[in-house]
Amino acid sequence: MLFSNVNIMDAQGQVTENAYLGTAGERISYIGASRPEGDFGRAIDGRGKLLMPGFYNAHAHSPMTLLRGYGENMRLQEWLNARIFPFEDRLDGNAVYWGTMLAMAESMRFGIVSTTDMYNFCDEMARAVADSGMKANISRALLSFDPGEDIHGMESFRECRELYGNWNGAEGGRLIVDMSIHAEYTSTPRIVSQLAEYAGDVGANMHVHVSETESEHEGCKERHGGMTPVEYFSSLGLFGTRTTAAHCVWLSEHDMELLAEKGVTVASCPVSNMKLASGVCNVPLLLEKGVNVAIGTDGAASNNSLNYIEEMKFFALANKVMRGDPTLVSPAETLRAATLAGARSQGRSGCGDIAVGARADLIALDLSVPNMRPIHDLASNVVYSACGSDVALTMVDGRIVYENGKHLTIDVERAVYETERAKDRILGELR
Amino acid sequence: MLFSNVNIMDAQGQVTENAYLGTAGERISYIGASRPEGDFGRAIDGRGKLLMPGFYNAHAHSPMTLLRGYGENMRLQEWLNARIFPFEDRLDGNAVYWGTMLAMAESMRFGIVSTTDMYNFCDEMARAVADSGMKANISRALLSFDPGEDIHGMESFRECRELYGNWNGAEGGRLIVDMSIHAEYTSTPRIVSQLAEYAGDVGANMHVHVSETESEHEGCKERHGGMTPVEYFSSLGLFGTRTTAAHCVWLSEHDMELLAEKGVTVASCPVSNMKLASGVCNVPLLLEKGVNVAIGTDGAASNNSLNYIEEMKFFALANKVMRGDPTLVSPAETLRAATLAGARSQGRSGCGDIAVGARADLIALDLSVPNMRPIHDLASNVVYSACGSDVALTMVDGRIVYENGKHLTIDVERAVYETERAKDRILGELR
Repeated sequence: MLFSNVNIMDAQGQVTENAYLGTAGERISYIGASRPEGDFGRAIDGRGKLLMPGFYNAHAHSPMTLLRGYGENMRLQEWLNARIFPFEDRLDGNAVYWGTMLAMAESMRFGIVSTTDMYNFCDEMARAVADSGMKANISRALLSFDPGEDIHGMESFRECRELYGNWNGAEGGRLIVDMSIHAEYTSTPRIVSQLAEYAGDVGANMHVHVSETESEHEGCKERHGGMTPVEYFSSLGLFGTRTTAAHCVWLSEHDMELLAEKGVTVASCPVSNMKLASGVCNVPLLLEKGVNVAIGTDGAASNNSLNYIEEMKFFALANKVMRGDPTLVSPAETLRAATLAGARSQGRSGCGDIAVGARADLIALDLSVPNMRPIHDLASNVVYSACGSDVALTMVDGRIVYENGKHLTIDVERAVYETERAKDRILGELR
Repeated sequence: MLFSNVNIMDAQGQVTENAYLGTAGERISYIGASRPEGDFGRAIDGRGKLLMPGFYNAHAHSPMTLLRGYGENMRLQEWLNARIFPFEDRLDGNAVYWGTMLAMAESMRFGIVSTTDMYNFCDEMARAVADSGMKANISRALLSFDPGEDIHGMESFRECRELYGNWNGAEGGRLIVDMSIHAEYTSTPRIVSQLAEYAGDVGANMHVHVSETESEHEGCKERHGGMTPVEYFSSLGLFGTRTTAAHCVWLSEHDMELLAEKGVTVASCPVSNMKLASGVCNVPLLLEKGVNVAIGTDGAASNNSLNYIEEMKFFALANKVMRGDPTLVSPAETLRAATLAGARSQGRSGCGDIAVGARADLIALDLSVPNMRPIHDLASNVVYSACGSDVALTMVDGRIVYENGKHLTIDVERAVYETERAKDRILGELR
């Protein structure tokens, strides 16, 4: 495929005007100022478009599209106990498949190419991602409340290993299987260290919720002799493998330094944290400490969308207002978090930027819409002025999955029908 | 016009499913469960759509689209002095006309039907609004730094009166001319009381910036014997006429009570206030005190878009996280602020809701997009899940101005061309 006369923006917001970009198979094969020799197949006129790396959603629970708008204006524990948990108890594989498929449809509409996901019924999740043409790091979260429980007796761990065997590296590497501890308050030291050891042995990434709320953070210190969740997990060896720590709203400076030292990625989820009134992750300080900071949408139940362009604006603005400094979290820092930092968190080398030889995980934004004009600074326009659906094209591994409002790999009407049906079934059972 | 089989949501988020809505001329003439008798002209199949009141943008500087992305990541005073003021000094009527036209194109794309505007070259602004088919309350802000200056010697006041004579009530009432004091720190007591008297005499509304930043709020107290901006304006009689006070981030409780007593509308601008790190207007407390709270985008220079659906999400979420309570600012409260409260602030009776006899200022949202499904709660989906451009149709006074991505009253390509040209001219002069 060849994009001609197109503006190209890299992961740091640097723009090359009026260029050519060619793809061969799943990779970018040419970038230059002039039309390349050779046959590139389909030619796409790039005038009035901005080509840039697709977005990496660094923390999500994709099937929770099924719960979008279910349980609003509630406090976290009431929301979980009265709404989320009873609904989730009635999920089945079919519901999860279609909930994930709807999430993939929404994700590609908003320029996401890859998602770090944590949920249940992961085989069905993996199948939906595979069928959609998207990329994902999928994990089955372990929970345990019995200090004596051994990981090798847990059904959920058996599922993890099976998932890893069946799906890790599948679909030409589009699918990666991560290991996951749900959170400190839903785990025991024994399963944390056992899973950390297993992940190290097989070389899997780790995905975990960390210090999302003040009560979780303070409660951990009470439960574990003053240790914060970061210190608790670190002491148990959890960060020995590449780890994504979601939320990280209530970190101490020492926590931040530990995360930097261990190379842990923080997946900040500003919309979900604001909507549940959990707080705002201190991104500027994390960046200053050298932590790799990426951006996640969290699940649609607490967001309530997967609108990644909107998420970027929240990411930058929440930090400006919370620290009282409008110079913090620049468009370039935001774009890097959305692309390169996310790809790095997923362990996807050669992804998240625009370069010859990199994976062709690209999006094209429409620059003809009124909100994107005039252009003083394209990086600012992308982060602050773009509307989610200004994404005109989403390409994953060189394959266009979404173009001009049309989903090319997903039957959206069917996904809508099936998710509505699953929702109605569950609500019927709950009545 | 007749919308059939459509979901209708009122200004409080209440939904009627599968209904019919007819318009005659500029008003809604029928709402019911069955198809009405008679000829309604064009029939629009409403299946998969949500019909609701259009949005009222309660504080904006429309021509500032010209400065979108110009001067990013700067502190307010540096931003104003190094970027905004020198650029604005070089504006002319042609630039303002096209900057306003581009803002109108963007506004209708995002479901705005009417805008409370404050700027310069107001004759050209009014002409652009008239040509676009949109509604606006336009005001020329007065500034004075000489305590002895009399309003009757000011060229800007002459412009206000001329504007009022030429445009107030024009275009079948679509245009309203307000009076405006820019802010406390750019005014003198004399011109404030003189303009208040004039506005009272002619029956005009008032539009003013109030307590946007902490330094403005505290500086006012130093300058005026401990009086806050609200107390200062109140003591000078400014609130004797219907007033919109923009921002109101740093109000005292006494200020809030005064605003409630005087019937002043607060136009909260959460995105601009967060981006400039000014703070977050305390919407829940204002509502508790009985203040009419509306929502504004502010200018595109500090937002950097006019994406009203995004603005609603910021409005709700900023208050949840700042007060640490996820139950605050419900979707119903947000929708009311976006519609009825805004119409009321503009002095537009019979606007801002869906009812027989009301003005047909309507928008239709597309419910077939993945981010709007499944539907547990439509009001939540509109505020939290919709993407700005999910607006499929915008109607002003019974006339469709925007439909399915097409602008029917504005040549957007020309508006883009002219704003880019004006921008290039000014940047050339500044070099």
